[in-house]
Amino acid sequence: MKINNKTYRSIWMENGIIKTIDQLKLPWSFEIAELTNREQVASAIKTMLIRGALTIGAAGSYGLAQFCLSLTAADLDAIAETRELLGTTRPTAYDLIHGLDFVFNAIKGETNLDILKQKATAAAEEYASRSIESCRLIGEYGNKLIKNDSHILTHCNAGAIATIDYGTALAPIRIAHKDEKLVFVFVDETRPRLQGSRLTAWEHREESISFAIIADNASGFYMQHGEIDIVITGADRIARNGDTANKIGTYEKAVLAKENNVPFYIAAPRSTFDSACESGTDIPIEERDEAEVLELNGVRIAPLGAAARNPSFDVTPSRYITGIITEKGVIEPSRDAISSYLDSFKS
Amino acid sequence: MKINNKTYRSIWMENGIIKTIDQLKLPWSFEIAELTNREQVASAIKTMLIRGALTIGAAGSYGLAQFCLSLTAADLDAIAETRELLGTTRPTAYDLIHGLDFVFNAIKGETNLDILKQKATAAAEEYASRSIESCRLIGEYGNKLIKNDSHILTHCNAGAIATIDYGTALAPIRIAHKDEKLVFVFVDETRPRLQGSRLTAWEHREESISFAIIADNASGFYMQHGEIDIVITGADRIARNGDTANKIGTYEKAVLAKENNVPFYIAAPRSTFDSACESGTDIPIEERDEAEVLELNGVRIAPLGAAARNPSFDVTPSRYITGIITEKGVIEPSRDAISSYLDSFKS
Repeated sequence: MKINNKTYRSIWMENGIIKTIDQLKLPWSFEIAELTNREQVASAIKTMLIRGALTIGAAGSYGLAQFCLSLTAADLDAIAETRELLGTTRPTAYDLIHGLDFVFNAIKGETNLDILKQKATAAAEEYASRSIESCRLIGEYGNKLIKNDSHILTHCNAGAIATIDYGTALAPIRIAHKDEKLVFVFVDETRPRLQGSRLTAWEHREESISFAIIADNASGFYMQHGEIDIVITGADRIARNGDTANKIGTYEKAVLAKENNVPFYIAAPRSTFDSACESGTDIPIEERDEAEVLELNGVRIAPLGAAARNPSFDVTPSRYITGIITEKGVIEPSRDAISSYLDSFKS
Repeated sequence: MKINNKTYRSIWMENGIIKTIDQLKLPWSFEIAELTNREQVASAIKTMLIRGALTIGAAGSYGLAQFCLSLTAADLDAIAETRELLGTTRPTAYDLIHGLDFVFNAIKGETNLDILKQKATAAAEEYASRSIESCRLIGEYGNKLIKNDSHILTHCNAGAIATIDYGTALAPIRIAHKDEKLVFVFVDETRPRLQGSRLTAWEHREESISFAIIADNASGFYMQHGEIDIVITGADRIARNGDTANKIGTYEKAVLAKENNVPFYIAAPRSTFDSACESGTDIPIEERDEAEVLELNGVRIAPLGAAARNPSFDVTPSRYITGIITEKGVIEPSRDAISSYLDSFKS
C-alpha cells in the first residue's frame, strides 16, 4: 500500500525486529512500532496495536520466527511455549493459529540451531508473501462482482493494514477503483473501536476512493432505500459449513442484506478457514473490556456506575452469505464447496 | 420522575418562562435551562437541548402559549407565524405538530387578548397533563407484556426525559420494576448521538433498574443467542398503516427481532400518530449534520477529509412490528386497528 507516496506492508521483520504500523495511533499519526520480543508481540496483539485477521496471522509467524532468532539452543519446548503464548492472545481470529502453525511446522524436529533460525525466518517470510498474493487474487476475483457505478457497504476494516497488503474486503474495491470503475463505499463506523471511521476511512482517503462514514445504525436505512448494491466484509474465522465469525455487527448487516436482496460477500483466504471447526457454534467469541463501550479515546461517554457488555465478534450463519471471495475464486458457503476448496490446497 | 430525590417533569412553564432539563448536559451535569422566547425554544429543539418526541410536542405547545403571553394584541397572524417557526424545527417528530395544533385550535378565533392568553396557557398545561397520563397508561398496558425475569432491548431514549414523565418505551419497564418484576435492559448506545448510553443509562441508574450498555452492533448477537425476550422502542411518527419512524437503527433492530422471533413493540400515544400520513414513505426523514458522525463530544474521531452521511431516523414497515403499546391498550399495526384507535378519540 502507498502511504505518503511510500510503499508499506502492515507488518514486516528487519534484522530480527518486527516493524508494524501502529493501528492505535491511526488516523491521527502514522507511526511504525518496533517489537523486539515475544512479550511485546503478545501485548501488541492484545491491545490491538496490531489488528486485522491476516496481520495478526503474520504477527504470529514473525513473532515465532523472532523468538527462534533469539535462541542460543534449539529449544523446541520454548518454541512450543511461545506458540502457546502468542496463540492465546486473541481467541477468535483463526489466522493467528494458521500463521503460528506455518512456522512451527517448518521447523518441527529441527535440532541444528542455525538451520532452525533460517527455516523459521524463511517460513515467516513465505507466510507473508503468500498472504499478500492471496489478497491480490481476492481483489481480482472480487473485482468481477463489482459493477461500474456501484455503492458498496463494508463493516470494520479488512483493508491493507489488516492484511499485510491489499486487504480482503477492501482488495476488490481497491482493484475496481484502479480499473477506473466508479465506486462509492458506505463505511460503517464500527463501534465500539471505530475501525471503520478510523482505519477504513483513512485507507480510502489515501487511495482517493469515494466514501462516506455512517453510524452502524444507518446501513439498514441505505439498504432499504436501494442505495447499497453489494456488501463485502472480511472474516476472522470460517467454519467448514460456511458459518463465519467477523467483527460484531457483521451478522446484523448480513440479515439486513438478505432481507433487502442485497448480495452479501465474505472475503478471506485459506488461512481464515478453520478445518477443525464444523460450524459457527464451535467458534469462541472474545468479549473485550467494557471500557471500549463506556469510553471513547479514553473519555467517558456513559454515566458513572453504568455497566456494558462488549462481545467483539459475532457469527453469521452461512445461509445469509451469498459467497466467499477466496484466492481461488468465489465459492459457495456450503460444506461441499468448502471441502473441495480446502482439499485443493493439499498436494 | 425522581432525580436526586426531587420530582421533575422534563419540561414545564412557570410565570411565562419555559423550564426544561438540559439534555445536552446529561449525564455529566443536571441543569435546568430557561427559555424566554420563541427563538430560544426553536433553537433548543434544533440543537436537541430539548429532545424526545413527546417532550418536543410539549415544547411546541408551551412555546406557542409563551408567545401568546408576550403579546400586546390578539395578533393571530403572529401566532400562526410562531406555529410555523416552531413546527419546522425538526421534520420527523409528529408530536411537535400535534402539540402546536392543540394550543392553536384552543385559541382559534379568540380576539380578547386576556382570554386568549388564559386559553393558550390552559391548553398547553392540559396537553402536558394528557401526555403524562398517556405515558402512565402505556406503562400499565406495556407492563402486562413483560414477564418476570425478562431481558429487554431498547434503542435510543424514550424515557421520562423524552416524554415529560414516565416515558413511552421505558414506562412499561419502569412499572414492571416497580411491580418488583426482575428486568434487565440491554441499552443500545444509539450512535451517533448516544441517547442510549447518555440518557437511557442515566434514567435506569436513577431508577435502580439493571442494565448494560451495548454497541448498536451487538443487539443482533444477543437476539441470536436468545438473550433478548422483547424489544420496546418509542416512535417519532406513526402512519395510518402502522409504518413507524423512529431513531436511526430502529429498522435494523426490528428486522433482527423478526428474524429471531423476538416480539418487537413500539410504545406511543395518540400524539405520535399522523392521521394525514398514509404510509411510511410519506414521512420526511431528517438528515443531520455530518459532524455528529465525524465527531464525538466535539472530538474528531474520523480522519480529516472524511465525509459522513447522517440520517437521523428510519421507517420500520408495520410487518416487522408485533404491536403498538398505546394509552388505550396494545393495538395491531394495521390500517383497520389504527383507524379504530384514532376514531376512539373523536367524541
